Amino acid sequence: MNKLKSGESSIPFQRSACPITNALDVMGDKWTLLIIRDLILGKHLYIEMMQSPEGIASNILANRLQRLEQAEFISKRAYQSNPTRYEYHLTTKGQDLLPVLEAIVKWGEKHVPGAVVFTGKNEKI
Amino acid sequence: MNKLKSGESSIPFQRSACPITNALDVMGDKWTLLIIRDLILGKHLYIEMMQSPEGIASNILANRLQRLEQAEFISKRAYQSNPTRYEYHLTTKGQDLLPVLEAIVKWGEKHVPGAVVFTGKNEKI
Repeated sequence: MNKLKSGESSIPFQRSACPITNALDVMGDKWTLLIIRDLILGKHLYIEMMQSPEGIASNILANRLQRLEQAEFISKRAYQSNPTRYEYHLTTKGQDLLPVLEAIVKWGEKHVPGAVVFTGKNEKI
Repeated sequence: MNKLKSGESSIPFQRSACPITNALDVMGDKWTLLIIRDLILGKHLYIEMMQSPEGIASNILANRLQRLEQAEFISKRAYQSNPTRYEYHLTTKGQDLLPVLEAIVKWGEKHVPGAVVFTGKNEKI
């Protein structure tokens, strides 16, 4: 029923060449987009993300930050040594997810009764 | 650092009142948005969704369809008996995810080299 557009790629994909599929390969879970949300809202430190109301587990946060860095959605920079601590920032690839989050927020405001939009230093989301 | 807007809801949420969080509680996995994609592209039968290139496992497809129906993203209608078989359609709540998928596609076209947009009977996505 469906067909691919002409110009199929020879680049190997994990599941398919669909852009949605490839996006979900990185952010298709219950936590990754919340980390992106927090970064957009101005949270850059591990401890700040740990304090978000969803109560992410430390091992999940560490795993997702590592995965996001490997996929070049974020970059990290040491701001302290002994012990080394990092601050995290969105790359352009990560920042460009803002319209995705905005579309989800718009959907949620219509379809999730009682949803409350979070606000941060830089953005409303 | 972040604060909630005034008018906090007394509705109980699984994790938080954030609309993104509540959306991810239903569709935060590697498969659910691909089922939504398929429905938007005009696939309405279980067997059609099984044939999508990502190769979803039958038990995962059955689980996600059930979850989507419970969350009122889709409705099902029997089109055959002995054995009973169903066709699946998006509700308004599900259809309203189209802008989310479109935003992901736009992101993917910029950031996933070689991504190929799928097309169906009704939409390009």
